[in-house]
Amino acid sequence: MKNIVTVTLNAALDVTYHVDSVQPGHTHRVTQVRTRPGGKGVNVAAVLTQLGEPVIATGFAGPELGAQLPGFVPIAAESRRTVTVVSAQDGTATLFNEPGPEVSAAEWTQLLARFDRLAAEASVLVLSGSLPRGLPPRAYAELIGRCPVPVILDTDGEPLRHGIAARPALVKPNADELARLLGRQPDLPADCVALGVPVAATLGAHGAVLSTADGVWTARPPRELAGNPTGAGDAFTAALARGMAHGTPWPRMLADAVALSAAAVLSPVAGAYDPAAYRDFTDQVTVEES
Amino acid sequence: MKNIVTVTLNAALDVTYHVDSVQPGHTHRVTQVRTRPGGKGVNVAAVLTQLGEPVIATGFAGPELGAQLPGFVPIAAESRRTVTVVSAQDGTATLFNEPGPEVSAAEWTQLLARFDRLAAEASVLVLSGSLPRGLPPRAYAELIGRCPVPVILDTDGEPLRHGIAARPALVKPNADELARLLGRQPDLPADCVALGVPVAATLGAHGAVLSTADGVWTARPPRELAGNPTGAGDAFTAALARGMAHGTPWPRMLADAVALSAAAVLSPVAGAYDPAAYRDFTDQVTVEES
Repeated sequence: MKNIVTVTLNAALDVTYHVDSVQPGHTHRVTQVRTRPGGKGVNVAAVLTQLGEPVIATGFAGPELGAQLPGFVPIAAESRRTVTVVSAQDGTATLFNEPGPEVSAAEWTQLLARFDRLAAEASVLVLSGSLPRGLPPRAYAELIGRCPVPVILDTDGEPLRHGIAARPALVKPNADELARLLGRQPDLPADCVALGVPVAATLGAHGAVLSTADGVWTARPPRELAGNPTGAGDAFTAALARGMAHGTPWPRMLADAVALSAAAVLSPVAGAYDPAAYRDFTDQVTVEES
Repeated sequence: MKNIVTVTLNAALDVTYHVDSVQPGHTHRVTQVRTRPGGKGVNVAAVLTQLGEPVIATGFAGPELGAQLPGFVPIAAESRRTVTVVSAQDGTATLFNEPGPEVSAAEWTQLLARFDRLAAEASVLVLSGSLPRGLPPRAYAELIGRCPVPVILDTDGEPLRHGIAARPALVKPNADELARLLGRQPDLPADCVALGVPVAATLGAHGAVLSTADGVWTARPPRELAGNPTGAGDAFTAALARGMAHGTPWPRMLADAVALSAAAVLSPVAGAYDPAAYRDFTDQVTVEES
């Protein structure tokens, strides 16, 4: 059985601080520190693992993060950290995202060699997240161009624009990313269709739109969910990757992705979903063809 | 010439994040990340180095921090981080202080061996900051008891209470630490005198009080200073250590410490002072005997 391969070029060490409450201008005693490897593709791989799918995660990792991500290409600079400060008082999360390391040309060459080796044996490739400094905005386009299997692309800005031009099998923007790509508020599903490649666009609590050469579908989640939206998009992508690897029909893949994404909102950490909720939601998502 | 030795048992990696503004519940793009070794004794040593005094810094350091603090006893757990988020909009600093690592009995034994070796060749010892988990609250008292040279103690809570009982040459609380020690607002200088050991208490913008067997003095800074108060107390301690190493008379030592501390407020980073301001302030600090 072939692996799904996820690529995270700007992986992170996700750090969570628990504090009583966040007060700008004050000193906070952190009562609990949790760290885990993160970044969108790392989360996608974690969800696929929970789904029982064979998956390999790769990308770049600095010295500290690399100790926890042995399948990643080592780089000299430290990977970025994200610090999420959780307030015990009101449960809100305040995030601080470091800009990330600079990658050298030699490190990029090593990544390409590992990518080619993994892509040759993969069922589906997933390219997720921002690019670290030092890589050209065409980096994802280059990976798509040299990949012999279907690629799902989840990124933003110029890397997304260049990536679409390289014609991936599917792109997964959210509403904000679509708006940045278009330079205006998107008109859905028309703007997805106009991109000329299959697009699965997530719309937060409103569900998702899938536009392909075979049809256009809209899916709505069972209900509004309170919880942790971090990683919901990565669970959505994980479901798309599994669907493509198994040849699942488009509308069923979309319904599954919306259900899994909703179940991820109920999980307290990114890269995981609530299995009971996922089972329930699978029958409750509505899909309409337009 | 003998060295001043500073001991930092709970050293930290001080991380500074620059953001546009701090908004609880939101995601912040960090525009700049700076890291440096920190902790009170590390700052004291940095100020002494800037003063041209021979100094050796020791303590505990985890794997990451240890690479930057070669004179420290390595421990298995990572040292704590402090994250200071500086807002470009209003210049305020929001601090998040991790709780720190756990130190094993074997690591404490190694620290004692290094301490004894350094103390035998030192002019003055400076013990600064909180204790990491795993050490008894009597840890500083034990170091004071086995030290053949004068010790300056700058800590808080139970470690301060036990440390005072071990009769250091000088303790340096601030007003908050004195209040916690007494369980009420301090009455100065009477409460310092009552502690039965020499006390140099810092009072923020109000200056400092020094109580010794030879007399009691109060020093006032030249004026209210706007700037970075982080590390001002460590500059104060550095001046005390230099004064003790050189046998400076008490009132001159106090005036010097207040001037250096005020000059540290004008420096943007802890562990440094503004040299021109220090020269000016040295003549402007007023000292009164009571």
